Amino acid sequence: MVRIAVDGMGGDFAPHAVVKGAESVFRDKIAEIVLVGDEAILRPLIPDSSIEIIHTPISVGMDESPSNALRKKGDCSINKAFELLKTGKVQGVVTAGNSGAAMGFAIFTLGRLPGVDRPAIATLHPNATGGTTVLVDSGGNVECKPTHLAQFAMMGDVFARCAFGLEAPKVGILSNATEETKGNELTRETHNILKSAGLGCYLGYVEGTDMHNGNADVVVTDGFVGNVSLKVTEGVAEMLMGFLKEKAREKKGNDPVGYTIMAEVVTQIYQRFDYANIGGAPLLGVDGVSIICHGKSSEHAIRNAIVMAASFVDNNLNESIKETMHNYESLQKIKER
Amino acid sequence: MVRIAVDGMGGDFAPHAVVKGAESVFRDKIAEIVLVGDEAILRPLIPDSSIEIIHTPISVGMDESPSNALRKKGDCSINKAFELLKTGKVQGVVTAGNSGAAMGFAIFTLGRLPGVDRPAIATLHPNATGGTTVLVDSGGNVECKPTHLAQFAMMGDVFARCAFGLEAPKVGILSNATEETKGNELTRETHNILKSAGLGCYLGYVEGTDMHNGNADVVVTDGFVGNVSLKVTEGVAEMLMGFLKEKAREKKGNDPVGYTIMAEVVTQIYQRFDYANIGGAPLLGVDGVSIICHGKSSEHAIRNAIVMAASFVDNNLNESIKETMHNYESLQKIKER
Repeated sequence: MVRIAVDGMGGDFAPHAVVKGAESVFRDKIAEIVLVGDEAILRPLIPDSSIEIIHTPISVGMDESPSNALRKKGDCSINKAFELLKTGKVQGVVTAGNSGAAMGFAIFTLGRLPGVDRPAIATLHPNATGGTTVLVDSGGNVECKPTHLAQFAMMGDVFARCAFGLEAPKVGILSNATEETKGNELTRETHNILKSAGLGCYLGYVEGTDMHNGNADVVVTDGFVGNVSLKVTEGVAEMLMGFLKEKAREKKGNDPVGYTIMAEVVTQIYQRFDYANIGGAPLLGVDGVSIICHGKSSEHAIRNAIVMAASFVDNNLNESIKETMHNYESLQKIKER
Repeated sequence: MVRIAVDGMGGDFAPHAVVKGAESVFRDKIAEIVLVGDEAILRPLIPDSSIEIIHTPISVGMDESPSNALRKKGDCSINKAFELLKTGKVQGVVTAGNSGAAMGFAIFTLGRLPGVDRPAIATLHPNATGGTTVLVDSGGNVECKPTHLAQFAMMGDVFARCAFGLEAPKVGILSNATEETKGNELTRETHNILKSAGLGCYLGYVEGTDMHNGNADVVVTDGFVGNVSLKVTEGVAEMLMGFLKEKAREKKGNDPVGYTIMAEVVTQIYQRFDYANIGGAPLLGVDGVSIICHGKSSEHAIRNAIVMAASFVDNNLNESIKETMHNYESLQKIKER
């Protein structure tokens, strides 16, 4: 069975939500679990289980400076988890901890794959057609060169093949219009690279609407625009869900039938679109399956992230990305262009 | 009464939707209307009304290249409308036509206000607190310098004072995190300018979520990120509305009560959040009140855009922006920084 290291101390609701999520995966025999963190805190939460705990008293605060953590906290729970992966004791890592520190330690400890200049965070978004659209990079790399974006596109392409079984994922560059004369310097240069890069189904430019309408399987952008897009998505969804919940509350007293219907719809929307069902965001381009979860991850979200990690291990995601990036001849040609 | 020139030929549903929207404003005596376009087409649509028509047989296609229109179609309906404004025959312009051409003709014919290097498109977004958040620039200027963004912030500040009666609008730069060490080169430089620019309530960096949660009245960004943010917003809203409508349809046959409740909620969401209720997007920084509408504008949207234009004229929006930008000493200091 696949073994996954889980950072027991990371996340706004750690350690409880993390331990509960990990235990549920363990109980259902989906994966073996190694919990990393302060044993004195973690052990009492799982008295009857045989889940292994790797002890470290050090952890990184959610608001701590990642660079400070990277300099001074090599023995923290996040990094201990990546060390287990590096030495082959586990096959994947899940953390809901400080995401800057997680990304830094992953790169430092696991290393970048050959052909990858900048590992990138991929977030998975349920779209209007019932499928999933991957946004890469979602915040890891704020300032990017065209070669970086081209690499994100290639990694996103392999990811969508492995994760969703697509033969030719539709990959587009996020821009302000679909015409190739539009965009900015970064998108135009990236487009010039990708036109001849031999992606399965390269769409050229896509627009913000294509992040959720199912037109694209992979949407490529820099980490600044990716982060903004992600948070605009969150904001619109929260606003509309807030409105629906308000309407449900209004009905609660005087219209029980209406309340039931509204409450049911709110639940259905969460079931269909909530990030907790997705689990976490894979970090693409480091040497090993690494899932970074939202800081607010619930037990349910942690469980799904571990299931996600296990399935990526089963699907040889890391080997596939490694092979693609290594073989991508055009990548070499375009290096530092 | 305020006189507004309306481009009768612009928009996906022109001329019918435009004429109907203009007629309804005229009938309700909110503003006097001058319709601009092909009289042979427009006159039969308003046989009994005394709405003035300024005839021109030339119009710009929705997908036509704006630069081509600017070179060859100076007599088009869009530009004729701006010429009426320039010569004082009307006090405002509304067009749902080719937005690139509209922006180009506005700058060419009306001119930029002193202190404004780049006029910007402001879009108005209903937020979760029942207020409105202004996004500027929403797509006019894809590649921007820090001085441009700083000017957008200043114009957005005056706009929010005039349009919403706010004493000290909360103005933020759209970034990937709120800490001032984050952001990219453009946002950091802009932040350095705005810190000392004396805005009423400068927030520093805001995030994508702040476009809809009511934390900010004005969100400042370049036209690339603005366009993406706008279209991500559209995409998420369409996806969730699509889901709600699907749920309503599912109930239609076998659960008439449920269907009624769902249909009512869908209607309420449109009433609260639909852009058609907003009307259009003011173009800030040209010398005259100019509203650019969504190409898909309905009669209702056109009506609201004309009402919006009339209210901006009443509130002396153009004079206020002119005065602010002229007086902004810091602007001069930072020029071409």
